[in-house]
Amino acid sequence: MLLSRIDHVGIAVTNLEEAIERYRSAFGLEVAATETNDLQGVREAMLRVGPLTPDGEGLVSSYVQLLEPLGPDTPVGKFLARRGEGLHHVGYAVDDVQIAIESLAAQGVRMLDSQPRHGSLGASIAFAHPKDLSGVLTELVQAAQG
Amino acid sequence: MLLSRIDHVGIAVTNLEEAIERYRSAFGLEVAATETNDLQGVREAMLRVGPLTPDGEGLVSSYVQLLEPLGPDTPVGKFLARRGEGLHHVGYAVDDVQIAIESLAAQGVRMLDSQPRHGSLGASIAFAHPKDLSGVLTELVQAAQG
Repeated sequence: MLLSRIDHVGIAVTNLEEAIERYRSAFGLEVAATETNDLQGVREAMLRVGPLTPDGEGLVSSYVQLLEPLGPDTPVGKFLARRGEGLHHVGYAVDDVQIAIESLAAQGVRMLDSQPRHGSLGASIAFAHPKDLSGVLTELVQAAQG
Repeated sequence: MLLSRIDHVGIAVTNLEEAIERYRSAFGLEVAATETNDLQGVREAMLRVGPLTPDGEGLVSSYVQLLEPLGPDTPVGKFLARRGEGLHHVGYAVDDVQIAIESLAAQGVRMLDSQPRHGSLGASIAFAHPKDLSGVLTELVQAAQG
């Protein structure tokens, strides 16, 4: 199987601090990392869901990823203008993102990234086009080593 | 922490068989169960992501849940008419759904279900209102015992 787990759900929000506080108070989720990604035009927080568990390569978990756009002309900014806050994408963990990219492309799934790029928590990632996956913007995530 | 893992992502689709075949060919995901839920107005398939892993109560996993509405006047039918195919909700695993309902309500999160009801794979579930969780329709899932 290409996918080893649901790595994260990405949620578009208008105000990162308010969303963090809401998810913290509702579920007890804590922020594992915050990051500004200028390339993707977002300020984001990763909130760990459940315990860290041993995988082949190290300790892994799943995350709620809260995404605040850096401006209205970013992908997440446009998403918010069109649909409002809500689920933006899902990320699945893969062992090797380059192999996963080639495997999906061979199955006719159009890739937005034909080469891996930098994602949250030092991961290597690639996005697939929602049109070929039932309207779901889908991210492949190869976790950082160690 | 109230949540033990991301149990599933729910995806609204227009044709269940086509979506199953797409997710099978793209990712190698296999159908663990199919079900018709008249109360929720959907025909659905649960596709397991990653291995079954031991939890306190038994073997658990995460799932892609593909949802085809039984008609246009169902919640998923209306979602499709408004937004098209795509991410519909996220489900988080909890140990005890009744305790989770009370905990969220105490934090001011409006619940669509104040009492647990039947979900996929024999689970007891409850939905929280998207307005109080950054626009995300959120399901609490207590897996069936055994």
